[in-house]
Amino acid sequence: MTVTIFPLQDFPLINPGDDLADILVAELRKISLENGDIIVIAHTIVSKAEDKVYNLDEVNPSAFALQIGELQEKDPRKIEVILQESSEIIRMNEHVLITATKHGFICANSGVDKSNTPGETVVGLPDDPDLSARRIKERILQDLGKNVAIIISDTFGRPLRVGTVNVAIGVVGINPVDDLRGHKDLFGYELVSTVVAKADEVAAAAGLVMGQADEGTPVIIVRGVEYAQVDTSAKILIRDRHTDVFR
Amino acid sequence: MTVTIFPLQDFPLINPGDDLADILVAELRKISLENGDIIVIAHTIVSKAEDKVYNLDEVNPSAFALQIGELQEKDPRKIEVILQESSEIIRMNEHVLITATKHGFICANSGVDKSNTPGETVVGLPDDPDLSARRIKERILQDLGKNVAIIISDTFGRPLRVGTVNVAIGVVGINPVDDLRGHKDLFGYELVSTVVAKADEVAAAAGLVMGQADEGTPVIIVRGVEYAQVDTSAKILIRDRHTDVFR
Repeated sequence: MTVTIFPLQDFPLINPGDDLADILVAELRKISLENGDIIVIAHTIVSKAEDKVYNLDEVNPSAFALQIGELQEKDPRKIEVILQESSEIIRMNEHVLITATKHGFICANSGVDKSNTPGETVVGLPDDPDLSARRIKERILQDLGKNVAIIISDTFGRPLRVGTVNVAIGVVGINPVDDLRGHKDLFGYELVSTVVAKADEVAAAAGLVMGQADEGTPVIIVRGVEYAQVDTSAKILIRDRHTDVFR
Repeated sequence: MTVTIFPLQDFPLINPGDDLADILVAELRKISLENGDIIVIAHTIVSKAEDKVYNLDEVNPSAFALQIGELQEKDPRKIEVILQESSEIIRMNEHVLITATKHGFICANSGVDKSNTPGETVVGLPDDPDLSARRIKERILQDLGKNVAIIISDTFGRPLRVGTVNVAIGVVGINPVDDLRGHKDLFGYELVSTVVAKADEVAAAAGLVMGQADEGTPVIIVRGVEYAQVDTSAKILIRDRHTDVFR
């Protein structure tokens, strides 16, 4: 079993309102896409295509956003967007603002990011990343006749460990978890509690090629991974709040 | 840039006291190892070779271990080993026992695992995974003339997100983090706070091929990743306890 990971080279810059599926299909015609390939897409280009872009000149920060902006020495208009994109503040101090997004993902700044956006704008996460993934998958099946899985990813920081890793925030065509419970190990024991976050491992692997700075390549093909073609949601990767001992 | 990930097929079972570097070099002769390859090794075979194996028949559980064993309905001898392998209990209830290991890694059960070990035995993490990695790297350089990086990995559960992912607990020849601070993004902004957990992304990618059950393949080659050949320690992936808002 060999896994290969490669980028779609020279992927065009995506602008608000672009038909991402259209552009993606055109780019995918340049490679030999295979059934079973997993296409990992940086959420920023999905957000931009879906016009999930805030022009900071049009944002009026609330009193609370102004207060946090002062505390953290950050643009209060960006804080306002972060608050609007959140459902709950999980941790905050003078350095961090960690929220649950409206989808339930827990991450810094509701996933709102200034990087790789021109002008005084910021992008939020797509409103329904599973649905965004589904639309792209269906378009690929229709236009290219290939049955693929799609993962929409973002880079999240983590409790306990330093540094960001790429994780799945939207999926289609792949079960985001591999449930090994009940499987036998080499000596016939039951592995009683192992659930592998497969979609996050795939996203992390794609992160090795995706890059974040100058040579940003927002679309990565991951080929050769065995996975269950079950349709669920990336939201099953969110821990239940009542059993999460670190929340 | 293409990354390929493949296992060393039919890797022999490792027993306590085996010379892992010796066995690994023999297996690596069967493939075309390249300079710059990253070899990801499941910690269990390192622990076994280093005889980091506890025979439960020889373990006397303390009163505290007996109490936790009763609470969690688990073998108190295994709890005793977990306590001995820990420096601190981070969270515990009737379901989980999350500790800091003596190295400082925070994980369930101090990384002590029954799976894939014959008989009434458990394995702990290697005492110094960076050193274990270094010895293997030096042996490969000496015997095969190839300059590689080594990552020793374990699968850790995570706060906030469901499922385990493979992470780095020992490294040599690769900087475990990519520090993008100061780099410019596509539009010339500074990416002010992005540190990527490169070694964890490589470990997660290897996890896609490693498997945990019947077809376990404990040694994975990751080829084509760009990385800094700086020698540090996997411990720099541990968040500082005083700034970790989730600890």
